[in-house]
Amino acid sequence: MKLKEVGERALLRMVRGICDKGPQIELGIGDDAAAINIGDKYLVVSTDMLIGNVHFLPETPIERIGRKSVVVNLSDLAAMGANPLGLVFSIGAPRDIEYSFIKDLLESMNSIAREYDTYIVGGDLNESTEIIISGTAFGTTLKNQLLTRSGAREGDIICLTGDLGSAAAGLKIILDKLPRGENEGLLDAFHEPVARVKIGHLLAQSGVVTSTIDISDGLAANLWQISRMSEVKLIIDKEELPINPQVKKISDENNWNLDELTLFSGEDFELLFTVKREGWESLKENVNTGEVNITKIGEVSKGHGVYIKKNSRIEELPDRGYEHFR
Amino acid sequence: MKLKEVGERALLRMVRGICDKGPQIELGIGDDAAAINIGDKYLVVSTDMLIGNVHFLPETPIERIGRKSVVVNLSDLAAMGANPLGLVFSIGAPRDIEYSFIKDLLESMNSIAREYDTYIVGGDLNESTEIIISGTAFGTTLKNQLLTRSGAREGDIICLTGDLGSAAAGLKIILDKLPRGENEGLLDAFHEPVARVKIGHLLAQSGVVTSTIDISDGLAANLWQISRMSEVKLIIDKEELPINPQVKKISDENNWNLDELTLFSGEDFELLFTVKREGWESLKENVNTGEVNITKIGEVSKGHGVYIKKNSRIEELPDRGYEHFR
Repeated sequence: MKLKEVGERALLRMVRGICDKGPQIELGIGDDAAAINIGDKYLVVSTDMLIGNVHFLPETPIERIGRKSVVVNLSDLAAMGANPLGLVFSIGAPRDIEYSFIKDLLESMNSIAREYDTYIVGGDLNESTEIIISGTAFGTTLKNQLLTRSGAREGDIICLTGDLGSAAAGLKIILDKLPRGENEGLLDAFHEPVARVKIGHLLAQSGVVTSTIDISDGLAANLWQISRMSEVKLIIDKEELPINPQVKKISDENNWNLDELTLFSGEDFELLFTVKREGWESLKENVNTGEVNITKIGEVSKGHGVYIKKNSRIEELPDRGYEHFR
Repeated sequence: MKLKEVGERALLRMVRGICDKGPQIELGIGDDAAAINIGDKYLVVSTDMLIGNVHFLPETPIERIGRKSVVVNLSDLAAMGANPLGLVFSIGAPRDIEYSFIKDLLESMNSIAREYDTYIVGGDLNESTEIIISGTAFGTTLKNQLLTRSGAREGDIICLTGDLGSAAAGLKIILDKLPRGENEGLLDAFHEPVARVKIGHLLAQSGVVTSTIDISDGLAANLWQISRMSEVKLIIDKEELPINPQVKKISDENNWNLDELTLFSGEDFELLFTVKREGWESLKENVNTGEVNITKIGEVSKGHGVYIKKNSRIEELPDRGYEHFR
């Protein structure tokens, strides 16, 4: 059997079955990051690999490659509510690549790390056939403030940071070679993804957030992960989704499938989370004075699966998004 | 200018120049691993990437790939005297690879991690054109027990764990297609490298070890790194090098260059370290009852550079070993 016939999720199950879990390991394989008991705190560690031809278009600016490689790793820490301590990177590059490429890449990685008040503390440079950037981010969280994928309970509110579809629309504008014009904002959303580190920390401190995940696989796929890990049914309301109006407009003009951009694309790093019903109003008041708003998009109920309410009808949301080897 | 015209060491200087160093970072880019202040301890983090065509022969058994990917990362922690907390791995694999390859790889990685009483706690699986295994190991050390590359001082003794040349000879036996016969032990040394985690911890606790590095770049190259980072002159004695007699024998029989195998090859993960003169005898007594012996191979003196004593003549040891992009 070939790897491509198995799919990423089945592989994850296989990996989880193989790797022993130590007594100090609070969370191992399967969450956004691992959490290890180090006394009064958890050490939170996450690793992500970006590969030239898979994750980047040939014309991608180096600045975006550097930004994304830092952001994907910090986003996983954000989803656990952890404060970053630092990042290490192993980089693979072909012998024939320009020296200035590596220099520019590292300069952008360092400056993005500094935006999040953290540092690149180590690395390894290797010869490879394509560009590979493998990062590991690590941080800490207080023991009672660890956020996971498995705490959602019946009655909780389902929420999202920021808006939906902007980065995916930005990518589509590039792929379809549309003019920049009034779409500058969407292109920026694609080129300059943001990890919600500060807000993740706020959610962790709030005491009312029951589960969190970033939507880097796409909203639908990540809702399914919360549903499976928390063993609950999630129902979102299409009317409540915080879709960027510019994304609606450009989708209408070009006959794009808006659902693909907003539900099944993995270009955003917003946080999807669930909140105890009684804590939602004060959390919203607290958070929505900052750089990004949070929006209610649905409710948790008993059962399993993920559903979407459209014009008062409820249908199952397909469990698909960005998945390797498929 | 192309990357291959620059070389790994010049690149390291560039990276060190670019990456800001935070106030909590005791050791950043340039040592075997990074060390970050986390209260009463240092968090020690190291990352290493292995790439199919660069680091492995096509006929390499999966078990060896799994072992090496764990050992290279733990060896860097050993060289800092740290106790491992866990490992994360990002793996890249072609779509067409067999499912069983990944399964066997992970099973071997998990079992090797367990040999060192540690765990694989997370990871990421991606599609790539060649096999890529990027690991990050992390652990902790007491603040007064951190080992670095920069503490060697005039008068110190230069030492080595284990013996020299076995793994490199094992590789040469495979490359030259020699019969296994009586060379089984050398082949094992190549196929089953060992990270000196326990002994690294003993060295850290001893209070008399002044600098440490693993010899994964080759003895000569790693002596030069200690010399540069500690700003001292190192003189080793050829007579005192702990060369495996079997390596001498097979080199003589096949007219191999023994110096290449013992001084300039990077297949071993022994620890090279310096010890205060007054602490050497008791350290040796303490350590040499265990699984591996330590041997004095030279002395630290004032000045700079690395020299080797041969038949009472002293000559400079070339600064070369395994280096990417060259």
